[in-house]
Amino acid sequence: MILRLRADTEPHHRQALLDELQRAGFEVTVLTSGGPAIIAVNGRAVPDAFVGRFMRTGVVEEVVTPSEPYRLAARASRPEGTVVQVGSVRIGEREPVVIAGPCTVESRDQLLRTAEAVREAGASLLRGGAFKPRTSPYSFHGLGERGLELLAEARERTGLPVVTEVLDTDHIDLVAQYADMLQIGSRNMMNFALLRKVAATGKPVLLKRGFAATVEEWLLAAEYLLASGNDRVVLCERGVRGFEPATRFMLDLNAVPLVRQRSHLPVIVDPSHGTGLRELVPPMSLAAIAAGAHGLLIEVHVQPEDALVDGRQSIDPATLAEIVRRVRLLAALAEEPVLV
Amino acid sequence: MILRLRADTEPHHRQALLDELQRAGFEVTVLTSGGPAIIAVNGRAVPDAFVGRFMRTGVVEEVVTPSEPYRLAARASRPEGTVVQVGSVRIGEREPVVIAGPCTVESRDQLLRTAEAVREAGASLLRGGAFKPRTSPYSFHGLGERGLELLAEARERTGLPVVTEVLDTDHIDLVAQYADMLQIGSRNMMNFALLRKVAATGKPVLLKRGFAATVEEWLLAAEYLLASGNDRVVLCERGVRGFEPATRFMLDLNAVPLVRQRSHLPVIVDPSHGTGLRELVPPMSLAAIAAGAHGLLIEVHVQPEDALVDGRQSIDPATLAEIVRRVRLLAALAEEPVLV
Amino acid sequence: MILRLRADTEPHHRQALLDELQRAGFEVTVLTSGGPAIIAVNGRAVPDAFVGRFMRTGVVEEVVTPSEPYRLAARASRPEGTVVQVGSVRIGEREPVVIAGPCTVESRDQLLRTAEAVREAGASLLRGGAFKPRTSPYSFHGLGERGLELLAEARERTGLPVVTEVLDTDHIDLVAQYADMLQIGSRNMMNFALLRKVAATGKPVLLKRGFAATVEEWLLAAEYLLASGNDRVVLCERGVRGFEPATRFMLDLNAVPLVRQRSHLPVIVDPSHGTGLRELVPPMSLAAIAAGAHGLLIEVHVQPEDALVDGRQSIDPATLAEIVRRVRLLAALAEEPVLV
Amino acid sequence: MILRLRADTEPHHRQALLDELQRAGFEVTVLTSGGPAIIAVNGRAVPDAFVGRFMRTGVVEEVVTPSEPYRLAARASRPEGTVVQVGSVRIGEREPVVIAGPCTVESRDQLLRTAEAVREAGASLLRGGAFKPRTSPYSFHGLGERGLELLAEARERTGLPVVTEVLDTDHIDLVAQYADMLQIGSRNMMNFALLRKVAATGKPVLLKRGFAATVEEWLLAAEYLLASGNDRVVLCERGVRGFEPATRFMLDLNAVPLVRQRSHLPVIVDPSHGTGLRELVPPMSLAAIAAGAHGLLIEVHVQPEDALVDGRQSIDPATLAEIVRRVRLLAALAEEPVLV
Repeated sequence: MILRLRADTEPHHRQALLDELQRAGFEVTVLTSGGPAIIAVNGRAVPDAFVGRFMRTGVVEEVVTPSEPYRLAARASRPEGTVVQVGSVRIGEREPVVIAGPCTVESRDQLLRTAEAVREAGASLLRGGAFKPRTSPYSFHGLGERGLELLAEARERTGLPVVTEVLDTDHIDLVAQYADMLQIGSRNMMNFALLRKVAATGKPVLLKRGFAATVEEWLLAAEYLLASGNDRVVLCERGVRGFEPATRFMLDLNAVPLVRQRSHLPVIVDPSHGTGLRELVPPMSLAAIAAGAHGLLIEVHVQPEDALVDGRQSIDPATLAEIVRRVRLLAALAEEPVLV
Repeated sequence: MILRLRADTEPHHRQALLDELQRAGFEVTVLTSGGPAIIAVNGRAVPDAFVGRFMRTGVVEEVVTPSEPYRLAARASRPEGTVVQVGSVRIGEREPVVIAGPCTVESRDQLLRTAEAVREAGASLLRGGAFKPRTSPYSFHGLGERGLELLAEARERTGLPVVTEVLDTDHIDLVAQYADMLQIGSRNMMNFALLRKVAATGKPVLLKRGFAATVEEWLLAAEYLLASGNDRVVLCERGVRGFEPATRFMLDLNAVPLVRQRSHLPVIVDPSHGTGLRELVPPMSLAAIAAGAHGLLIEVHVQPEDALVDGRQSIDPATLAEIVRRVRLLAALAEEPVLV
Repeated sequence: MILRLRADTEPHHRQALLDELQRAGFEVTVLTSGGPAIIAVNGRAVPDAFVGRFMRTGVVEEVVTPSEPYRLAARASRPEGTVVQVGSVRIGEREPVVIAGPCTVESRDQLLRTAEAVREAGASLLRGGAFKPRTSPYSFHGLGERGLELLAEARERTGLPVVTEVLDTDHIDLVAQYADMLQIGSRNMMNFALLRKVAATGKPVLLKRGFAATVEEWLLAAEYLLASGNDRVVLCERGVRGFEPATRFMLDLNAVPLVRQRSHLPVIVDPSHGTGLRELVPPMSLAAIAAGAHGLLIEVHVQPEDALVDGRQSIDPATLAEIVRRVRLLAALAEEPVLV
Repeated sequence: MILRLRADTEPHHRQALLDELQRAGFEVTVLTSGGPAIIAVNGRAVPDAFVGRFMRTGVVEEVVTPSEPYRLAARASRPEGTVVQVGSVRIGEREPVVIAGPCTVESRDQLLRTAEAVREAGASLLRGGAFKPRTSPYSFHGLGERGLELLAEARERTGLPVVTEVLDTDHIDLVAQYADMLQIGSRNMMNFALLRKVAATGKPVLLKRGFAATVEEWLLAAEYLLASGNDRVVLCERGVRGFEPATRFMLDLNAVPLVRQRSHLPVIVDPSHGTGLRELVPPMSLAAIAAGAHGLLIEVHVQPEDALVDGRQSIDPATLAEIVRRVRLLAALAEEPVLV
């Protein structure tokens, strides 16, 4: 059972309600960061009398029991939608957010130049990999902590909050010390130990869809984060495995309106991995926003041809600027979703 | 080898060139409907001396040898892009074309009401199935010739050209007698006998992508049509088979910019089959146009709940009107594609 | 509703039953070739009184209403299983049947040598393509009627019945004149016009699974054949489209026990297309038989390296002989299926 | 560069060689458990003079440079094949090994009864989940350490070595304390931190294929284990994601001969997850062995209908006994692989 609290609930009224629930022996999960507070009562059923009393307090907007297995992530639990704030950037509102940067932090020069360039181009957050998951043990795995330091320096210089991936539970504290938002990559979408421990940091989380995960499995992975008390969760569609050899992955944009219909969490799109071809990044960026995405995650390199990793799918800053310009026009055009 | 003729070539100059090629014993394919004429010289190589002479006539713009296995469909063979005219509607230009109508012609009343409604809503062509491919032999297979007559009547009343599917080589003449554009469905994309015979009618052809066809296989299917001398070919992405159970198919919008990059043929998108869910039709329509599609193919029913076939994915005319309105705004916004 | 007749029903008793049904205005489909006769009563329901009378005649074994959408193909309609006889070869019994030959008939010498070699190796039927479906219009499409003549000559010499594909409804009569069994290829599994017209020849039909068809869709395609009065149908699993690049297709052997559980039709496996790699043909042949397949369809070439089409997946006759030897040992070992 | 040592190399000769390499400044990986020792020289190239001297020692069988990106796992690095010993059970030889047990350890009674039953039925190892990866945070996640204790007790009673999954790097020591073999599940195949730390225990590892991993990605995951110095690695095919809704996954048996061709590591098959249907477990078990698998991983429950997790795919002990009996007959029949 989920108690949706009113948006204007005072913290002490919320606390009073929680105290009462705890006194009555209920175990609860409370989510307060991304919008009106949600209290999930876990385990046993709440007697009707209790529910009635809650309703009369003027604090509870509605009591809902979502039919989806991901009850905290279900749209019904926060119909207004969740907004995730990273630094001063708000993800989940009308204005699309562009997260851009290199696949991998390669050097100070490369990162700082790219960071300046993406800020100039209009990006709102900086991405960059310090710890890189690589299919082969012999590939370059990133600069590690040195990469994190460079990301922090780039943030100082540009003011852009930093998103970077965490691969190993042993590195969570380290990464959380430097990053503003922690990314869980596709390969780890079902690494439940990592999900739980990343959630526990309280930091915003960017949860990429596993490349063979159904939308339901993805929302259940998000549910692991929410059930750990963290609702600062942004979903990211990045392409799934299909039979088409011409593109690296098949970008499943159907998932965008589907997620918006079924969940209150913001959803963004990564057209770089989702296509694997830089020529496809601009049109698929526009398509993602037109489909309803709240933002984009794009790989940008000052010299895409020289990138150590994934250069084939990286665009240059000038192309990013053009994408940002058009995406804003698109967003200005966008109105309320078409009701069907 | 492909000879691209100049756009302003006079028919008699083109004929003179063809005569010379034939006298020299070359077998050729000539495509003239969708843009500047293309002459493919099949089989043996053309001696350099010949090529030189052609170039000096002022008729040949360029001699190209596309590296793709679909050489007639390759972008290099007509870099300007092909425009397919159906009645007075032109598919392949900046303004997106909306083809709408019921999945199946069910009755005179249903069809005429829907036809009027989609014209009102801003559609440019009317679609409707008279012969329906059905997975089960026991399902409703359409009204057949009676359905064709009703489509013709709907065209009379609304002025909308009619697109309908042809399933069986035995019906080609019959369908061609009534329809303005012949659709080859996904299940028949590799029915090569059908492709050749449909091409031979000279009518515009709507070629849907097979639901497990790669983009290359799809363009090779188009090549069958072109190699039969018919370049009035419009491609239609309609979703491919994937592992996601929440949607009927996985709409592969990556294919849209990919086709535009690799081929000169226009490409449209069917968000109805590509999602299977009417709530997803509006956002995915916008996404398709943003990705660069030249138009949409949408299932519309005056009472979607009562549709005999595919009601779950049909929208009503009011929703179509809203899609058309937004798609036009999007198109007005669209400028030259982003160059990468 | 399906009437399963007793195995020992005399033809005139069956006819009397049919006459009675027709007098009563029922439309029926009758299947008699592959096992005990099945009468499907189509359209309206049969009154209980009628059913009771049928049961008392001693001709009707059982009245069943399969819940599957493919009611004629459903296991319940002929629990004994169907046996399809081609010449003197019986497909659907314990002894696996090996169909072998070249992908394509290339020349008289190649075909006759291969035919002799596969007979020597222990194959029971000869396969070979005279009309070849090719993804590209520019590929070799087979020798056509000349190929059929050569297949007939090979049959004369070896005594092996001949299986060959029919692509175009216009060629059905021609192919049926030469071939003992007509193959419907994967690309045409949903070419319903072809299915109906091929069924009408009364010849045995080899129905390959479409490479993106679900098992249910495949059985519904078989239902088109059965509903046209032809129960001489053998199914062939040949690999489906997947994401693995190392093999040409993903051979779905799960489909073999699934089909045996759900349908009474025999099912064989094509490990040549299903792997695309000749090294994988022997182990996957054994695996197919172990999974319960009634036979194999294997591409064999006397000089695999020189094959015009699909040489990479063709084996030589010595390998075939070894496969046949092992498959027979496996079959001798096989007992009743394990009941779960 | 890989140095394959002779099978009869004395440990002190091997050590002398290693000392020499280290003195010369080379970084090496040494694998000695699963067969003749392999020394991989990492990083910079080895001068020819060195190689010549090694060859003359009589210790080096061959110097190879596999072209595959997984050079330690490549067949060329140990053409004899690897045999992984778990307790007294050897995996990778002609006799197939059956690993059986419940999906999840539910209770002492359930586990001990099942363990006795699978030993009676002929299984060689006991499987059972103490820590279960579950798609939903609200599903039963296993008994944890209590489950491990029960597994150890079951081993005491039956003599069967125990295989169980490790999900979280924090639990590796705990699980390694109880288990004889550590399983890395499909969801974690690309959890590289887990791979490295599990390898470091030196315990045998069962590496399941990710359900959307290509064979190359799977072998690269194995390479992470080998590159960490652990060659006690058994691969397990368990079905991949496909479009067929009738089965839980698509069991990719093509992968079995492919892995045997490309790698020296043993490969087994899990027909329980690979089908999701208990009726398909017996035929697909036989098919797996016929395809060349070195063993099976099967879910068995004393009362499959009562299983807390995955009951639909669990078989009972009597069925297991019948599978074991037939698999042994199959193996007796098996001879050298067919060479193509």
